[in-house]
Amino acid sequence: MSSSKRQMSIGMNILGFGAHSAAWREAEAPAGALTDLDYFSHIARVSERGTLDAIFLADGPALAGDVSRQPSGRLEPTVLLTAIALATQHIGVIATASSTFNDPYNLARRLASVDHLSGGRAAWNVVTTYNDAAAQNFGQAGSALHAERYGRAEEFVEVVQKLWDSWEDDAIVGDAARGVFADPAKVHTIDHVGQHFSVRGPLNVSRSPQGRPVIVQAGSSEGGKTLGSRYADAIFTTQTTLADGLAFYQEMKNRARAWGRNPEHLKIMPGLSTVIGSTEAEAQARFDRLNAYLGESTLAQQIAFRIGIPLDELDLDAELPWQRIGPVSEFKGSHGFLEAQLNLARREKLSVRELSRRILVGHRLIVGTPEQVADSLEQWFLAGAADGFNIMPDMFPSGVEVFVDEVVPLLRKRGVFRHEYAGSTLRDHLGLPHPRSQYERTNQAVSA
Amino acid sequence: MSSSKRQMSIGMNILGFGAHSAAWREAEAPAGALTDLDYFSHIARVSERGTLDAIFLADGPALAGDVSRQPSGRLEPTVLLTAIALATQHIGVIATASSTFNDPYNLARRLASVDHLSGGRAAWNVVTTYNDAAAQNFGQAGSALHAERYGRAEEFVEVVQKLWDSWEDDAIVGDAARGVFADPAKVHTIDHVGQHFSVRGPLNVSRSPQGRPVIVQAGSSEGGKTLGSRYADAIFTTQTTLADGLAFYQEMKNRARAWGRNPEHLKIMPGLSTVIGSTEAEAQARFDRLNAYLGESTLAQQIAFRIGIPLDELDLDAELPWQRIGPVSEFKGSHGFLEAQLNLARREKLSVRELSRRILVGHRLIVGTPEQVADSLEQWFLAGAADGFNIMPDMFPSGVEVFVDEVVPLLRKRGVFRHEYAGSTLRDHLGLPHPRSQYERTNQAVSA
Repeated sequence: MSSSKRQMSIGMNILGFGAHSAAWREAEAPAGALTDLDYFSHIARVSERGTLDAIFLADGPALAGDVSRQPSGRLEPTVLLTAIALATQHIGVIATASSTFNDPYNLARRLASVDHLSGGRAAWNVVTTYNDAAAQNFGQAGSALHAERYGRAEEFVEVVQKLWDSWEDDAIVGDAARGVFADPAKVHTIDHVGQHFSVRGPLNVSRSPQGRPVIVQAGSSEGGKTLGSRYADAIFTTQTTLADGLAFYQEMKNRARAWGRNPEHLKIMPGLSTVIGSTEAEAQARFDRLNAYLGESTLAQQIAFRIGIPLDELDLDAELPWQRIGPVSEFKGSHGFLEAQLNLARREKLSVRELSRRILVGHRLIVGTPEQVADSLEQWFLAGAADGFNIMPDMFPSGVEVFVDEVVPLLRKRGVFRHEYAGSTLRDHLGLPHPRSQYERTNQAVSA
Repeated sequence: MSSSKRQMSIGMNILGFGAHSAAWREAEAPAGALTDLDYFSHIARVSERGTLDAIFLADGPALAGDVSRQPSGRLEPTVLLTAIALATQHIGVIATASSTFNDPYNLARRLASVDHLSGGRAAWNVVTTYNDAAAQNFGQAGSALHAERYGRAEEFVEVVQKLWDSWEDDAIVGDAARGVFADPAKVHTIDHVGQHFSVRGPLNVSRSPQGRPVIVQAGSSEGGKTLGSRYADAIFTTQTTLADGLAFYQEMKNRARAWGRNPEHLKIMPGLSTVIGSTEAEAQARFDRLNAYLGESTLAQQIAFRIGIPLDELDLDAELPWQRIGPVSEFKGSHGFLEAQLNLARREKLSVRELSRRILVGHRLIVGTPEQVADSLEQWFLAGAADGFNIMPDMFPSGVEVFVDEVVPLLRKRGVFRHEYAGSTLRDHLGLPHPRSQYERTNQAVSA
């Protein structure tokens, strides 16, 4: 029965020069890498050598941070991932795009186009984008409220799915001799009229290889959970303790079931940042080297930023100032990241400084050996806290190389990860079915 | 002095299976070609073998026409052209995108991304999109008025150029040792506040190889001429007689001069549809064969559509019913196409049927030998009616193959077209200078 043994999925998250904000200082890649296809193609090809499910690009439509100190400016994901898909054969490509700052017709079409060109390897990571700088690039003074963003997001996804379904799989007849291009009974207007959008359709590109590109959702707030459990194929989540991971996994599967879905078709993929060395000491030295570029307090700044308290008002060697931190639901930013941090700090009674070394870009961090990373992945997977993982190495390309060359073989040996790709689409890799068009009529004669 | 002799530019317009709407019936390419990269890459590679300046994709965000009879559904141009750029080394890629149904921040970034990935070969063809079906995919009942669309378009282009300029050419310092990524004095907010857009900036991608991707404009209405003469690097225009071509060329150069521009930096490129055979009779037979798929009246339908009079109210063997055709400015669709048709019919006193055989997809048509095509291109070019041409072959791939293999050698022999690419960017091919950022400060000390 080993061939049918449940296997984990793994996504590789390409965050600039790496998840550690000082990664670029090591100069493993030149400063121009962020606009250089060779840089991204190398990471994708290494990931493909490791039979990972997908590479993933985060995104937001604004310049974030201080350009003098932080690598800034990045290529638009649907465009970059088209290029990466053509440099690879198997691996999925997941593009983040904002439901707040796009139109559903244009985005549905671009994603379907990427799916066509990649032979069925495209996915959309739905984000609602919470920063004011983005809003100010689109005629708004500041970011809309959490509930408003998620209301729009839910309708946006509904419209996108209708558009993807507007051409049935076999709509194209392609009979040049008779002059019949497509069957008009299998190409549908969607006539959507909702609170945020009125979209007539059909989409102006035929149905793509996956039918619908994979939908990924990464918010763990109440709004994010509602959206994700109803529409997503995979959830990228931040879970910092196994207990939280187990609870979240169960909750999301239950929510999917409540929507009438097969819970196996909703994949739960917690994030994990990695700093890997041959020994624990080596990994720690690598982490220390990266941290040294930033100075003592910069790591703690990520905590200060999330909880909304200035760094100089925090005692780094004390626990978090719990009395000053209000309910998570009142925060404007990512509720998932904040909650995960607070949970970890509370459960393990961590000081601000300790907490800051257990989190990277908002996610759980392991500084350790390939065995320690593989152990943790296997543990979470077998315990039922994860169907897969979204891996965020500290630094590229060494972080993905060591993961593929040292961690993946261990996972394969333990029988929890594939040796080769079994199918050709991202849906195949993730174990998701090919969706039927919602406009398809069963057992009904259709005149061409 | 032959090395400095003025050379024409040539763009290859990939309109589905070809400019003739029956092209797909010949089955030179399979029905699935519209979503197949190999189909487009082959056309692009043949065009590159002919050292053409660029390939061009028209577009609009709606499904047009009758899917049962017309090949329908096409890939989004920025995504498809990224893929095509990676399948080629030199040729420019021109993406049509609507200023009415996009946001300037997203579009500026996608185009800059294509420019980065193609090594400086990207261009944007600005269109305002006049069909109701498109409007209905974006929450509107019907298309906005001509003047409104062009008001938005003008501000849209202004914002896009500001965003492209928001990173100066040398903004990235990339000093990993000192930890200086970019010079913040060379990365600018644009703080644009206008009638249609408020955009803070800066763009979240660094300045691309061309500084600004090339801007193409294809409207020949008053609004289109104003926009094109002020902002465009190249004008794709429909001119059906040499006299009209000469007048348009002079008018646009004068308009550019009036904006304070160097008129040589505005390239005028009329469209030309081609049906080519080794002899005139062979070309005519090819045209007849394609027309036979459609039936007698379908060619005339393109005239009926433009002038807004039902086909069955037209006498195909009489001149146009001039008394029923109002002023061009009162039409909702493309003023340029309509005006060019009316001018040709008036000047040559053509019947509806005759006119319908001199026009294809709204542009001048030559049915003839390679010599006849080369003669016409040379004549217009040397007379001062064109800096280059936008070629629309009847059918792909044979139409581009015969153009590159039979027409291009003639143009080279006559010394009016290049034998090889002299530069690496589309601006190089077109003879356009590298633009300075409007935020660049001359001779001013900047502290990093």
